[in-house]
Amino acid sequence: MRYFSPPLEKLIEQFESLPGIGHKSAQRLAFHVLSLPDGKAEEFAGAILEARGSIHMCRVCQNLTEGEICPVCADERRERGTICVVSDPKDVIALERTREYRGLYHVLHGAISPLNDIGPDQLKIKELLQRVADEDVGEVIMATNPDTEGETTAMYIARLLKPFGVKVTRLAYGMPAGGHLEFSDEVTLAHALEGRRDI
Amino acid sequence: MRYFSPPLEKLIEQFESLPGIGHKSAQRLAFHVLSLPDGKAEEFAGAILEARGSIHMCRVCQNLTEGEICPVCADERRERGTICVVSDPKDVIALERTREYRGLYHVLHGAISPLNDIGPDQLKIKELLQRVADEDVGEVIMATNPDTEGETTAMYIARLLKPFGVKVTRLAYGMPAGGHLEFSDEVTLAHALEGRRDI
Repeated sequence: MRYFSPPLEKLIEQFESLPGIGHKSAQRLAFHVLSLPDGKAEEFAGAILEARGSIHMCRVCQNLTEGEICPVCADERRERGTICVVSDPKDVIALERTREYRGLYHVLHGAISPLNDIGPDQLKIKELLQRVADEDVGEVIMATNPDTEGETTAMYIARLLKPFGVKVTRLAYGMPAGGHLEFSDEVTLAHALEGRRDI
Repeated sequence: MRYFSPPLEKLIEQFESLPGIGHKSAQRLAFHVLSLPDGKAEEFAGAILEARGSIHMCRVCQNLTEGEICPVCADERRERGTICVVSDPKDVIALERTREYRGLYHVLHGAISPLNDIGPDQLKIKELLQRVADEDVGEVIMATNPDTEGETTAMYIARLLKPFGVKVTRLAYGMPAGGHLEFSDEVTLAHALEGRRDI
């Protein structure tokens, strides 16, 4: 016999398609949704539809936003001559949390990854070049992740930006705050040694 | 500044309200939903609404089902004189998978848990007593979980069933298949010793 009725099976499948959710978790989540008080499941479904319907990419920096232009791009107090290039909208949030960065962003929505069939054309690189060409940009900070994909993407974009004569920088490598030498990998330690500074 | 736009914030909150999903996972899931191809997010929301709309409790055994009566209760080949009492619809599936049980079920939808403010009135105990009173039931198998809540619930219901003169049994305790004595807890081992059988 079938264990689940088709609508429940479908809901489980939907949860299972989410990243990091296996079959057992998907079952648990589906049963949880069924056990919600009246109106709560409708709220959940509504939140999905509303978020999908109202959120799209900022015309300038490609970050996710509700309006045509995101709050950072619209903020007149930000330094408009610096663009920080990140892979993901979540990275913008991570950088904003530091309260150190006052420039603008550009979100690529991914990183070059031949293994996952993601080439430069799938990323928002054209839009970045257009910005650098059209606006008075003094510096582009490559803040992609310090992994293979992020490095490749940073190098690729840096080469494309060369003809524009813009300064291109990369986030510093080194020991993370609160880290232990004992547990650091060789690459991180080598970077930290190489980038040592006078105190 | 706010990091997320309100619809995204709302979606993250909704995911965070699910069991076992923390704030970081909720963010990841929300961003995943935003990055889905057209129509996929609508499918997800639709699956939630459809499951909620079409699934309710079986009139007889209180298991979740689409029709008025669940497939197990409707199946004429099941032994109608045996009722297996479980806490949760997922437990029915676990027992069905054994292909050993041919009787009917009764789903309590929880277990007595004073710490979580769940008393007998919140469980489908009245419905069970009604079934035992109305029908020709020979045996009630208490298959609640072998933890404090499950034990309490089993003992409580067994006492209520006493006046009906029905046979009440409990699942056997012992070593799980594939288990190791070395890693078994004392309670399980004690149960396994106590319940030892001739070979």
